Amino acid sequence: MTVIGLGEMGFALAGAFLDGGHPTTVWNRTPEKADPLVAKGADRSATVRDAVAASPLVVVSVQGNATARAVLESSGDVLSGRSVLNLTDGTSEEARAVAEWVGDQGARYLHGQIMTIAPGIGGAETVIFYGGSHAVFDHFRPTLQLIGGRGTLISADAGIPALYGMAVHGTMWGALNGFLHAAALLSSEGIEVRRFLDDAGPSVAALLASFPGIADEVDRGEYATPYGALQHHRPSVEDLVRESRARNIDVEFPGYTLGLVNKAVEDGHADDSYSRLVEHFRQR
Amino acid sequence: MTVIGLGEMGFALAGAFLDGGHPTTVWNRTPEKADPLVAKGADRSATVRDAVAASPLVVVSVQGNATARAVLESSGDVLSGRSVLNLTDGTSEEARAVAEWVGDQGARYLHGQIMTIAPGIGGAETVIFYGGSHAVFDHFRPTLQLIGGRGTLISADAGIPALYGMAVHGTMWGALNGFLHAAALLSSEGIEVRRFLDDAGPSVAALLASFPGIADEVDRGEYATPYGALQHHRPSVEDLVRESRARNIDVEFPGYTLGLVNKAVEDGHADDSYSRLVEHFRQR
Ligand SMILES: NC(=O)c1ccc[n+]([C@@H]2O[C@H](COP(=O)([O-])OP(=O)(O)OC[C@H]3O[C@@H](n4cnc5c(N)ncnc54)[C@H](OP(=O)(O)O)[C@@H]3O)[C@@H](O)[C@H]2O)c1
Ligand SMILES: NC(=O)c1ccc[n+]([C@@H]2O[C@H](COP(=O)([O-])OP(=O)(O)OC[C@H]3O[C@@H](n4cnc5c(N)ncnc54)[C@H](OP(=O)(O)O)[C@@H]3O)[C@@H](O)[C@H]2O)c1
Repeated sequence: MTVIGLGEMGFALAGAFLDGGHPTTVWNRTPEKADPLVAKGADRSATVRDAVAASPLVVVSVQGNATARAVLESSGDVLSGRSVLNLTDGTSEEARAVAEWVGDQGARYLHGQIMTIAPGIGGAETVIFYGGSHAVFDHFRPTLQLIGGRGTLISADAGIPALYGMAVHGTMWGALNGFLHAAALLSSEGIEVRRFLDDAGPSVAALLASFPGIADEVDRGEYATPYGALQHHRPSVEDLVRESRARNIDVEFPGYTLGLVNKAVEDGHADDSYSRLVEHFRQR
Repeated sequence: MTVIGLGEMGFALAGAFLDGGHPTTVWNRTPEKADPLVAKGADRSATVRDAVAASPLVVVSVQGNATARAVLESSGDVLSGRSVLNLTDGTSEEARAVAEWVGDQGARYLHGQIMTIAPGIGGAETVIFYGGSHAVFDHFRPTLQLIGGRGTLISADAGIPALYGMAVHGTMWGALNGFLHAAALLSSEGIEVRRFLDDAGPSVAALLASFPGIADEVDRGEYATPYGALQHHRPSVEDLVRESRARNIDVEFPGYTLGLVNKAVEDGHADDSYSRLVEHFRQR
């Protein structure tokens, strides 16, 4: 096993391989970051070329796919016949570009999107979305288990894991923005946010139960609904804007949602479900 | 039992009381909407005064608390000694104003925030947040069970249910906006959104597991974190913006999140968790 890049994430990855009993070679631009790993038994290579040459599987975790590619390029001609697992985040196009270049070197390529932060590496519930070579995924499956118990190959296309990751994270940022705005509202009244969650947890969780239905509406492109249509959301979003204004809390965030709902209603979609707003996001 | 207002929600409420075997009197501005309820055994009153005078508990469900109050005012002097359950949505201030006026009439007041759409009325899992008179909540508890199995009195303050409702809905709209933006992204690649959810459901659900920790950070006002800080979110939000641009998907929504993260990092909070953004929402 070779790990290239020992930032917060690469360091955790190399640690998990070592803990799993794998001989592990490491390389990092700033070599000192390898010290604690060397103390645990890792081999430190002085050059990327030596690091790549040391193992059949080369794991890359650096900041950005331009860097991932540049670092791999510096290995010269030793990539051929090996397998590359790139765990560097970026766009789908960037991942595909690295995949193509690695393929051109005669190596097999798998891209992974890690869905946890560093302390989650090695967890039984840790999700990693893989895309690319089925052969690499199958051959190194026991090794991949060491970094995340829930690794799944979702596509032969190395660009798809990035899209999956963005879809999860984009949903997360939206939810967090909404929740933190709500937290500002609650705390302005002196309500502890944790107490609210204890009381209202089931309602917040019920949210997620609505996602499959929304996904189906989007997939079918049919949004008409007999209940809870956009026209029924509108007064509630207006309440949130008014409440925020009265409490001197940010109105831009709820105002953005109100703008989307108003526009959809004005465009004749008052009886459609909230899912209709996907059409807004589809057009720049 | 009297139900005033037979819109989508009031109609469902009156139906649940009738189904539960309660003699139910109804009034609606447009009287014909009561026809199916009358067929099920409801008494239709010609005036609000008659409707209020018919029952010890008066349930109100109309569009907006200004209307709720105006309708109650039209009952004249028959409110005294009765109990009012107002299930009309609005801001906390508006609910408190109705509560105060009802109190001045010598009546007891409970406000309820219904956390479902009309078909959910009567469900064992249906949540209703109540605030106001403990006596009303206790006395009519079996009746309240008929409209929602999970009704809880969260405060003696009639304004709090609205805040709770907004906090849940605001989180929901944020999550839905994020999810629908993600849906636009996925479908631009030809990925069925339902398939994504089937694959990535646990990751989306894991999101909610982070909320209690975030609530604690907000309550303590301490945001420093050794892992997953804002500086680590930033490149991923940038990826989402770039991916959206490349696919001709809306960039305003992820760009908004990027703006929040950039600002917080520039203000010196790079090592704080995402929870720090609550401070952004606190200031207009
Ligand atoms: N940290 C997380 O929680 C997390 C979670 C999921 C995914 N990821 C992803 O994992 C990847 C690594 O993230 P990280 O958190 O470990 O980042 P990090 O702590 O900032 O470390 C960045 C790594 O990239 C290397 N690097 C940067 N520019 C380089 C260059 N021009 N040439 C060679 N090496 C260079 C750094 O080397 P030096 O040590 O020499 O600076 C370091 O090893 C990223 O794609 C990130 O999105 C991270
Ligand atoms: N529908 C839901 O899924 C849902 C969910 C949770 C909470 N709520 C809340 O429940 C309340 C009622 O909503 P809804 O969905 O039933 O609304 P709706 O279907 O639009 O019905 C509005 C009701 O208000 C009455 N009304 C409006 N203006 C009036 C006025 N000036 N004087 C007298 N009556 C007036 C209407 O009477 P007419 O029939 O004569 O127009 C009708 O009974 C709202 O606060 C809403 O936010 C609704």
